Amino acid sequence: MTEVAHDAQPQAQPPAQHAPEAADTVELLGLVAHLQHVAFNRLAEDARVAPSTAQQLELSRLAAAAVDRRDRVLARVVELGGEPERCLGAYARLLEDFDSRTQPSTWWERLLRSYVADGVSDDFCRIAASAVDDRSRALLLEVLDDAEHANLAVGELEAAGAQDEVLVSRLALWGRRLVGEALGVVQQAMSAHPALGRLVTRREAEARSAEEAAAAPAPEAPAAPEADGAAPAKLFGELTAEHTRRMSRLGLTA
Amino acid sequence: MTEVAHDAQPQAQPPAQHAPEAADTVELLGLVAHLQHVAFNRLAEDARVAPSTAQQLELSRLAAAAVDRRDRVLARVVELGGEPERCLGAYARLLEDFDSRTQPSTWWERLLRSYVADGVSDDFCRIAASAVDDRSRALLLEVLDDAEHANLAVGELEAAGAQDEVLVSRLALWGRRLVGEALGVVQQAMSAHPALGRLVTRREAEARSAEEAAAAPAPEAPAAPEADGAAPAKLFGELTAEHTRRMSRLGLTA
Repeated sequence: MTEVAHDAQPQAQPPAQHAPEAADTVELLGLVAHLQHVAFNRLAEDARVAPSTAQQLELSRLAAAAVDRRDRVLARVVELGGEPERCLGAYARLLEDFDSRTQPSTWWERLLRSYVADGVSDDFCRIAASAVDDRSRALLLEVLDDAEHANLAVGELEAAGAQDEVLVSRLALWGRRLVGEALGVVQQAMSAHPALGRLVTRREAEARSAEEAAAAPAPEAPAAPEADGAAPAKLFGELTAEHTRRMSRLGLTA
Repeated sequence: MTEVAHDAQPQAQPPAQHAPEAADTVELLGLVAHLQHVAFNRLAEDARVAPSTAQQLELSRLAAAAVDRRDRVLARVVELGGEPERCLGAYARLLEDFDSRTQPSTWWERLLRSYVADGVSDDFCRIAASAVDDRSRALLLEVLDDAEHANLAVGELEAAGAQDEVLVSRLALWGRRLVGEALGVVQQAMSAHPALGRLVTRREAEARSAEEAAAAPAPEAPAAPEADGAAPAKLFGELTAEHTRRMSRLGLTA
């Protein structure tokens, strides 16, 4: 596994069965760090407007934890020879459209927005992470495994929905809008950052050859990697299925 | 030293030469925790609007550190039998007037506002902390000793001022307005929270008797504590002197 950073042409990639170049990994780390930085900003704002002191305390702690996670990811970027600020900067405008199109009008819409958006983006990053080097993957899975905010959202939304059927159906509608926008962001991210598409494709190719190896004694050839930037076949199905599962945790139909 | 929390009347205080009741200490801890919580909110907002990615990273780290300090202070509140949320809630409106009267119109005014306000409030809390039990005092002095944000502000303001005399004189004026408002907040805090006045008075009384003991072989009687809520004589002189010293670090006349 090559862990030397290089500013080389993204075209000059090894075949999909090889370990990814560090540059692709750095690009995924940059995305995760950016998302944690965004989470910090959002949680800090949530903390500021939260209705009770207890919620303010809890949300500010989650905001601080996001800073810590972001910095651990950036430390790995440095280990791989990347530049933290450039890495983050590359994603600076990624969520602009999403944010402006999904302005929440209530505290519940705000909670659900984070729950849906974080769910989709964490799932995407986990999928892409399965194609990077072991240390980076272990770090990413650990960072992405944080369910504290999700649990907080589930608790509050369940409690609120239990008493209010109108709220439940409004939130179900809101959730459908959110997931559509969130999947759009995934698509944009992959087309702006071909490295992300390569990671997802490599993982799918590996899964396919593993399946084929199990099913048939001798596959004719390893599956060809899909073109850079193309939305890999299985990805959106998986993301949607996970979203549906998360919405049903809230008693909402996706 | 009594470390049992009580909801007793603030009037029923022991004489100043006694160790303070835990309730007074809890009230000071509440103030410090509140100020750290406010610092978190402010630093998080600073991080969001900071001009460069490097500043965003640095300020978000300072915001996270403020959460950690606040929580350490609240843990001590719990040890002393106090209730963290009530403690914080008691100060919820303390800075409302200050904030609305000192809206910064530039990034420099914003930096200087934090520098001046934190300087004055930290000095005040350090002074009050000298009259509490050893463990609380050690914790408070450690929490209040954080100079990272001050250093950041000094660095940026010095660099900006070195090239711009108009900015320097504007900021000097702004600093004078800020310190006036900040001292007003101290006065309000002491009149709304007599416990704070008692701590400051006790510390001054102790300092006086120590001086008298050193100067004369037998003082006639220990100095009488000042009335609750009264602004103790030396306090504002000290706060102003420290402010002047801080402004001169920036090359600004106070």
